[in-house]
Amino acid sequence: MTLVELIAKKRDGGTHDAGEIRRIVESFMQGDLTEYQLSAWLMAVFFRGMTDEETVALTEAMLHSGDVLDLGGVEGVKIDKHSTGGVGDKVSICLAPLVAACGVPVPMVSGRGLGHTGGTLDKLEAIPGFDVNLEPARFAQVVRDVGTAMIGQTARIAPADKRIYALRDVTATVESVPLIVASILSKKLAEGIDGLVLDVKVGRGAFMKTREDAERLATALVRVGTAAKKRVSAILTRMDAPLGLAIGNSNETREAILVLHGGGPADLVACTLELGDEMLLLGGAAADKTAARARLTDAIASPLKSLNNASF
Amino acid sequence: MTLVELIAKKRDGGTHDAGEIRRIVESFMQGDLTEYQLSAWLMAVFFRGMTDEETVALTEAMLHSGDVLDLGGVEGVKIDKHSTGGVGDKVSICLAPLVAACGVPVPMVSGRGLGHTGGTLDKLEAIPGFDVNLEPARFAQVVRDVGTAMIGQTARIAPADKRIYALRDVTATVESVPLIVASILSKKLAEGIDGLVLDVKVGRGAFMKTREDAERLATALVRVGTAAKKRVSAILTRMDAPLGLAIGNSNETREAILVLHGGGPADLVACTLELGDEMLLLGGAAADKTAARARLTDAIASPLKSLNNASF
Repeated sequence: MTLVELIAKKRDGGTHDAGEIRRIVESFMQGDLTEYQLSAWLMAVFFRGMTDEETVALTEAMLHSGDVLDLGGVEGVKIDKHSTGGVGDKVSICLAPLVAACGVPVPMVSGRGLGHTGGTLDKLEAIPGFDVNLEPARFAQVVRDVGTAMIGQTARIAPADKRIYALRDVTATVESVPLIVASILSKKLAEGIDGLVLDVKVGRGAFMKTREDAERLATALVRVGTAAKKRVSAILTRMDAPLGLAIGNSNETREAILVLHGGGPADLVACTLELGDEMLLLGGAAADKTAARARLTDAIASPLKSLNNASF
Repeated sequence: MTLVELIAKKRDGGTHDAGEIRRIVESFMQGDLTEYQLSAWLMAVFFRGMTDEETVALTEAMLHSGDVLDLGGVEGVKIDKHSTGGVGDKVSICLAPLVAACGVPVPMVSGRGLGHTGGTLDKLEAIPGFDVNLEPARFAQVVRDVGTAMIGQTARIAPADKRIYALRDVTATVESVPLIVASILSKKLAEGIDGLVLDVKVGRGAFMKTREDAERLATALVRVGTAAKKRVSAILTRMDAPLGLAIGNSNETREAILVLHGGGPADLVACTLELGDEMLLLGGAAADKTAARARLTDAIASPLKSLNNASF
């Protein structure tokens, strides 16, 4: 089958096998499949959709286009969180250390702001000297020593996703559930995680405006992630107003740290704890939601010696 | 509206106004709309279709991307014929001089072979010294003096169609009725014609395999051509076996010339006369089909002095 015939197959409602999907991604990365051919295929996917098997194949093809971080030296069930993006969403900054403090390692590769939503990396960089560009070995070491580390997507993590996303952004092919799912999961699975909790935002300030759309994305993420042999769960959270009260990178970082001190606005605390519950359950650090919530609140209540004298 | 929003508009089933269509074609020709963006738009058109008004706008935008031949100096109603392509189709070579001999000027810009189908230009070039690359002024002069001239598409005739067709060919976006209609009509209208007879082939050897598909294309061509203020009619002809007996460029050219001598295989003669009827009707050289047929057969029966001593 020629590359043009592969485009026609999806256009005509056919289902690709894993080898065909791999061939599309690999041919694109090698330059044999051009950008204009891939964008035609992406638009055909927009209309025809993809089965879960096709989406897993696309996820894995993009994942293996680059390095998969080796966290074999880190003990425990490694769990990350991904949010589909919101305004004032600084949850990662308090959630990752909180969950790590409860014994679940959190290796987190975060993103920059996208569209109208903020990015965790941008917020973290408000801390002078914070380095979001750790080498893979150093990243693994920090996760092992501290329990969590947060870095940015390097050029070597899922480079196919990076190039394909850039193309989708300028060809009106972003809004496709299987393409969104493969993009999210390929980056996250490249972290070497065992499981992932998804925070699917819904509402006026989210990419998914309706509960129906958010549910469709959330269930697809869980189905495909599970088919890719990871522990995956998703929760839907409202995004009709900014999360918390602070807006601006340094203000938001400060507000997130307040949560770790037992403070912070109620909506931010609630969202953090909801996601934390799920992460502890997936990570095997709690038998049920009540136990998970107790561990999280205990961790918040315990003194943070090194931060006690800091002023926020 | 940004260019990406224009793609999204068609993707979501919207209808472009003429200004938007013009902007897409002009931006593409100027390099502001990239090939990957146009191919995404083309795939969206494949799925969403276009209204007749959109198709007229696309036809005219591609037509005016280059030169429109000025045949103002040629008297009479100028009529051309276009075939959607078949095997052994050498009709143009006998049809154009035959219709011209009946008083209807035939300015014809022909194509090369496409896929498995032959091209009139390739066949004509089997005649030593035949020049298919006349300058526009010389083309007009030959039509005026002789009644017909056949040339190839120059780089200055509908260059947007040429570039867009090349892109469709490698992005699986050829098989879209409005895109096919706009491509055919933009080239033909650039000839400066008043009317066009379409020979829509249907069958095993044609691009349209079923009568239903052929009818859909034929009616769209007539509707859009009429909306573009031209006299347009279409006939469906079978293409299950090669037309005539001869295959090969020089053999086919010889067979077509035989028709002008009153010979030639019955299917080729029948197809030539059917199309000739329509051209004479559109050109106002006959009041009805019976009168048209009489003129054509008279013209064939009249001696061809200059060819009488040629041997085929």
